[in-house]
Amino acid sequence: MAKELKDLTKRSVDYSRWYNELVVKADLAEQADVRGCMVIKPYGYAIWECIQQNLDARFKATGVQNAYFPMLIPKSYLSKEADHVEGFAKECAVVTHYRLKANPDGDGVVVDPAAKLEEELIIRPTSETTIWNTFRGWIHSWRDLPILCNQWCNVMRWEMRTRLFLRTSEFLWQEGHTAHATRQEAEDRAKQMLEVYADFAKDILAIPMVRGVKSETERFAGALDTYTIEAMMQDGKALQSGTSHFLGQNFGKAFDVKFVNKENKEEYAWASSWGVSTRLMGALIMTHSDDNGLVLPPHVAPVQVVIIPIFKGDEVDKFDEVLGGLAKKLSAKGIRVKYDNADNKRPGFKFADYELKGVPIRLVMGGRDLENGTIELMRRDTLEKETLSFDGIEERIPSLLEEIQENIYNKALKHREECTYTCSNYEDFKQRVKEGGFFICDWDGTAETEAQIKADTQATIRCIPYGVSQENLRTDMVSGKPAVARVIIARSY
Amino acid sequence: MAKELKDLTKRSVDYSRWYNELVVKADLAEQADVRGCMVIKPYGYAIWECIQQNLDARFKATGVQNAYFPMLIPKSYLSKEADHVEGFAKECAVVTHYRLKANPDGDGVVVDPAAKLEEELIIRPTSETTIWNTFRGWIHSWRDLPILCNQWCNVMRWEMRTRLFLRTSEFLWQEGHTAHATRQEAEDRAKQMLEVYADFAKDILAIPMVRGVKSETERFAGALDTYTIEAMMQDGKALQSGTSHFLGQNFGKAFDVKFVNKENKEEYAWASSWGVSTRLMGALIMTHSDDNGLVLPPHVAPVQVVIIPIFKGDEVDKFDEVLGGLAKKLSAKGIRVKYDNADNKRPGFKFADYELKGVPIRLVMGGRDLENGTIELMRRDTLEKETLSFDGIEERIPSLLEEIQENIYNKALKHREECTYTCSNYEDFKQRVKEGGFFICDWDGTAETEAQIKADTQATIRCIPYGVSQENLRTDMVSGKPAVARVIIARSY
Repeated sequence: MAKELKDLTKRSVDYSRWYNELVVKADLAEQADVRGCMVIKPYGYAIWECIQQNLDARFKATGVQNAYFPMLIPKSYLSKEADHVEGFAKECAVVTHYRLKANPDGDGVVVDPAAKLEEELIIRPTSETTIWNTFRGWIHSWRDLPILCNQWCNVMRWEMRTRLFLRTSEFLWQEGHTAHATRQEAEDRAKQMLEVYADFAKDILAIPMVRGVKSETERFAGALDTYTIEAMMQDGKALQSGTSHFLGQNFGKAFDVKFVNKENKEEYAWASSWGVSTRLMGALIMTHSDDNGLVLPPHVAPVQVVIIPIFKGDEVDKFDEVLGGLAKKLSAKGIRVKYDNADNKRPGFKFADYELKGVPIRLVMGGRDLENGTIELMRRDTLEKETLSFDGIEERIPSLLEEIQENIYNKALKHREECTYTCSNYEDFKQRVKEGGFFICDWDGTAETEAQIKADTQATIRCIPYGVSQENLRTDMVSGKPAVARVIIARSY
Repeated sequence: MAKELKDLTKRSVDYSRWYNELVVKADLAEQADVRGCMVIKPYGYAIWECIQQNLDARFKATGVQNAYFPMLIPKSYLSKEADHVEGFAKECAVVTHYRLKANPDGDGVVVDPAAKLEEELIIRPTSETTIWNTFRGWIHSWRDLPILCNQWCNVMRWEMRTRLFLRTSEFLWQEGHTAHATRQEAEDRAKQMLEVYADFAKDILAIPMVRGVKSETERFAGALDTYTIEAMMQDGKALQSGTSHFLGQNFGKAFDVKFVNKENKEEYAWASSWGVSTRLMGALIMTHSDDNGLVLPPHVAPVQVVIIPIFKGDEVDKFDEVLGGLAKKLSAKGIRVKYDNADNKRPGFKFADYELKGVPIRLVMGGRDLENGTIELMRRDTLEKETLSFDGIEERIPSLLEEIQENIYNKALKHREECTYTCSNYEDFKQRVKEGGFFICDWDGTAETEAQIKADTQATIRCIPYGVSQENLRTDMVSGKPAVARVIIARSY
């Protein structure tokens, strides 16, 4: 077992394989028998719960309430918004029957042909259609607005090529759906939620996000504008980590959701929607982890501090008193701590396992430490060890956790900054983009240019980024035409 | 709108209609367009979140970890456990295709016949099959046991007659699944979780539960024993509110989950499973509410205290200072408080609305109160009002909330005790059971007698209850044969 733990492929050898192995070896998730679906294991789910709780509180602080809408959507709803059906019809799981029966020709069960649905139902790939169909009953006057709803749920998109957390047929997410009396309010909400996502990613996941607007090609099916947060992975590829959409009146019109405005006139309601998913787990893993395993920022680590005694036989009692007491003190400070005095695993195994699982701080005490009143501390982010006085150690931990959080963030930011380039020569670009990185380029605004870049390099326009000057635009490096925007181009997951 | 709020059917007129109306009028849930499915509205979902958070902490305190397993289950899995398939095959939603395409003959989209699945997938009605299929990879030695997993998720059972919260095709629930090295441990776990459910129901929902064991007829499909908590509704009917199952080695055998035990011998793993669902919402509503609307026990109320000023025009500022300050003080004590100074609704409307929504304590302050330093307090459970000194009011609230919680529980307990009868004459039973109530009867242990009772009266054996003496059993009132158990019989939801 201990051997197996060390068998992690190095990032420099095969980054993609390193990721796949790490997800499984660190007990985060595994492939299910059902094609493209995953089992999220307890340790992986504990991280997801940290993400959920923190995000949920942030949503509620902006006035959002949770609700729940049906998982099954009548097929015809999908067709009501033209772009939406175009975007999702090709990857829908379809329910056609509601009963099985004993197989008349042998073993097992077969679908009962008598139990065929009149209209097929699809498993939600996203819920704009069913939610806006419901909103019609909730919205009559401007006094009913805004409606700020969110649901945490599973969705299903029948993906052909899947990868744990990054792209699975079924995944967990939250989807926020809001209805507003004015265009301005709906647009503001879409932008506001992007900020909530970016702040969360920074504060909790220690991931610096580029915020920006998608090009038309990359927009959500049915949106007038899609805002995105894009993270850079260690291999220089981009990972779209969350999006928010200004939907205009598209769904209001498609589902006939009208209200009487303050001027006593009927008007269609304005919409936003926004979501992040278990894909964030992929972003988290690929941004920070190393050849020894996960590196978890303390704010999202299910176990922030692990305490391990090194003992023989019944010596454990002596450690239990001292270290059990320390665990209690840390726990009282709100720190998620685990005291591991199990005697069926060797210390070496434990060290490797907690390293693999990314526990931010490891405290180890052996017999000599006990005598000397010392303890060994290892930081997972730097792998640095130091021997400290046991006395008052609990006072150092909270600030050290914050220091680690900050260090992990800064490292990721530095990496992104070092791998972000300005580029105006297409030949040069084609060479360099293979190695990864974000390329800031001037773009002529056409889908043709985007398609050309994608065909030549697999790279896409990630977004028109905030915080990058849009002044003094020059020519598009592909077409040579005058540019209309400065964009970030990168290969992506 | 204010009129509409009062339009609630009285319980004495039509209990069933009262329930249906209340669920909708109190903004808890509504029927979705998809047959048998529901939309859980924000207020209803906030109650569900209270339930989830509290239960989740209780599960974790017993060592349970959350995880997530796929929603889709290969059809063949269902057949691997004979009783299980018998129990669930008739109500399965079946996914047969994974793609839609543009309708070649007209508008909209149709199922793409080219995208037919080789093996159909069903939407989980419960997850024993897929979880035990996964456990096979996790369990090799006794050292891997026990595994104590839970998931919060949606499930689908294609019910023919549905009712909001009580019986819907899709519902939300938690399902715990545990694997053990010994029979004893698995049985103990099933019993332990029943106690967790019963304690939770008492402490949080203020519902007294009868705990007991199901008869064979009423067992979960695939279980060796099913334990149940049964609540009595105000009309004297029973509502099964949660169950836990000792599954023996049935799923271990069906999915070939073997481990090497301490004696170095191979053995099949032992199982328990246990679940409660959004049905608890139905139990909560029907146990406590009255003709004015919901009555929520404080421990599960999303808003525990509402504070309403009665003001004209710009007087509101004066109240904001005083009552806003009170709200802050209560909030600092961990009380969920809402200060409602909205000026677009009249006080009378607010009173009716918060009554309908079951907010446990209402505080109202008018101009004279402000002058006199008084405030009016109303308890939702008794509808009693009293005028109190404003000074120090915040000190009274926490203990009053506890008093209300206790009172609501005691009222429900008293009702159940008053409507629980001992009965040994079948003619007498047949008359009286129509009026509701729990009937403690001696039973001969046969399915025939159960079937007879059900055919004659629609009543069923709810359980062999804990805490009812099983000594000095006499004869079965139906068959006249010697009894083998003392059971509770009742009509149920």
